[in-house]
Amino acid sequence: MGWIVNQNILIVGLGLMGGSYAKGLKHIGYHMMAIDTDPAAISYALENGIIDEGRTDVDPQMVRKADVIIFGLYPHLIADWVRDYQTYFKYGIRITDVTGVKRCIVYEVQDLLREDVEFIPAHPMAGREVYGVQNSDEKMFHNANYIVTPTAKNTPEAIDWCKDLGRLLGFSNVAVLTPEEHDEMIGFVSQLTHVIAVALMDCSDNTHLVDYTGDSFRDLTRIANINERMWSELFLVNKDALLEQMDTFMAEMDVLRDMLRKDDKQGLCEKMKLSTARRALFNKRK
Amino acid sequence: MGWIVNQNILIVGLGLMGGSYAKGLKHIGYHMMAIDTDPAAISYALENGIIDEGRTDVDPQMVRKADVIIFGLYPHLIADWVRDYQTYFKYGIRITDVTGVKRCIVYEVQDLLREDVEFIPAHPMAGREVYGVQNSDEKMFHNANYIVTPTAKNTPEAIDWCKDLGRLLGFSNVAVLTPEEHDEMIGFVSQLTHVIAVALMDCSDNTHLVDYTGDSFRDLTRIANINERMWSELFLVNKDALLEQMDTFMAEMDVLRDMLRKDDKQGLCEKMKLSTARRALFNKRK
Repeated sequence: MGWIVNQNILIVGLGLMGGSYAKGLKHIGYHMMAIDTDPAAISYALENGIIDEGRTDVDPQMVRKADVIIFGLYPHLIADWVRDYQTYFKYGIRITDVTGVKRCIVYEVQDLLREDVEFIPAHPMAGREVYGVQNSDEKMFHNANYIVTPTAKNTPEAIDWCKDLGRLLGFSNVAVLTPEEHDEMIGFVSQLTHVIAVALMDCSDNTHLVDYTGDSFRDLTRIANINERMWSELFLVNKDALLEQMDTFMAEMDVLRDMLRKDDKQGLCEKMKLSTARRALFNKRK
Repeated sequence: MGWIVNQNILIVGLGLMGGSYAKGLKHIGYHMMAIDTDPAAISYALENGIIDEGRTDVDPQMVRKADVIIFGLYPHLIADWVRDYQTYFKYGIRITDVTGVKRCIVYEVQDLLREDVEFIPAHPMAGREVYGVQNSDEKMFHNANYIVTPTAKNTPEAIDWCKDLGRLLGFSNVAVLTPEEHDEMIGFVSQLTHVIAVALMDCSDNTHLVDYTGDSFRDLTRIANINERMWSELFLVNKDALLEQMDTFMAEMDVLRDMLRKDDKQGLCEKMKLSTARRALFNKRK
């Protein structure tokens, strides 16, 4: 079963990401439904044509209509939602998610899920420093990466289907990693960078910094504007991987600090040449 | 003596920054001259109308014509240049620079300078991850900060003149700091951020990162593409201030690491709320 345009897609959790999925899929022509506990999110989405139907409670009728369910909930809520409401799921549907951590969700949900339903997890590597469906924008998926993180329980057909979803949404690159590979990688490229931005911004209480700063500081602290409820949860559920990445980074900082202390100009130059060469790989692709 | 359009301005060191100054000032109508040891830089600038006259040697005739001299040289070269060639300076001119560190240059140059000539140091807080006059662009000054760092030896008139230069070049904000305040601040907002970017990029030899990464990692490592010759010099001449900033940052990272280890969600949330509140000051001004 591929992506057929007259299908009904249900978004559970209509925030920035769920809303952006809804916009992208609605443009293609799907019948979009959403459930969110926040009445403001549902009414905004209905008024702005982002969804066709919306509810603030879990309406069994709406769940039964869904050919696809996409979870945009906070990580700790997904397993309970599936456990409580899977009795309403249409036979044989596929479900996916947008969660930024994988190990802590994927196995639990797959283990408790009905035999006829398949959960294929994915992580859209896009985001903004604002939240809510009011700020949703499917254009943030362009030039971004989309990662499918299947397990041994997933079928090749469902994995392809989930990759197709990334392509339908306009992601420029679709990749596949195991949940373990994903969480290690995300601990580095996403979680560690957010920790660094927060630490950097918390270093100084100088409110005049903005008058002296250049683009470097602006760029490194953009993500210090952070949704603390979501990110503290993401950090803690991926704690082992994030701590390992923090240790690696701080060891590297220690090496640079020692070089500076010892006036090791040659050593500093070598480190900078390495970082320049590695960063060049990113420029080519952007 | 203010900024009179028929003046002759000499740029010594025609790189990215010197070239961008030349473009901006030429557009206003000044007669632009440049000295750079690289024949390619001079011929490019002449062919593209960035300067009116250029030399690869220090031509006494050209130096004698200058009403203003702006240094775009590497930090360690400026004092020697002034010592060797100030005998050619026109009586009573003003000189300034674009150097990213101040204490190590300002006092030395002011001490050896002729009595009739005044050196008013400045730091244009703009840059790009490319270099050379070929990449110069005066538009990088817009929405950027320009900092004048006078000493007790400077006159109020010359300080105003130097602030006017920042405005002429289109900087959106012109500030004044002492050389000491400047170097401490720059150790934080510029040098520490470059150290972090280099450390982050040097952490992992995974050449496939680009396939999985989001904008956060791209933003935090943009400046890991770095001119190692210039930046190793900037780091080492500001070593005391940079080491202090690195220590502060790493202590803050340690606090966050401990909170994560202890599952201190409340503590992490407080740190994120603080960083979000502080970062908001930047959003208003951009």
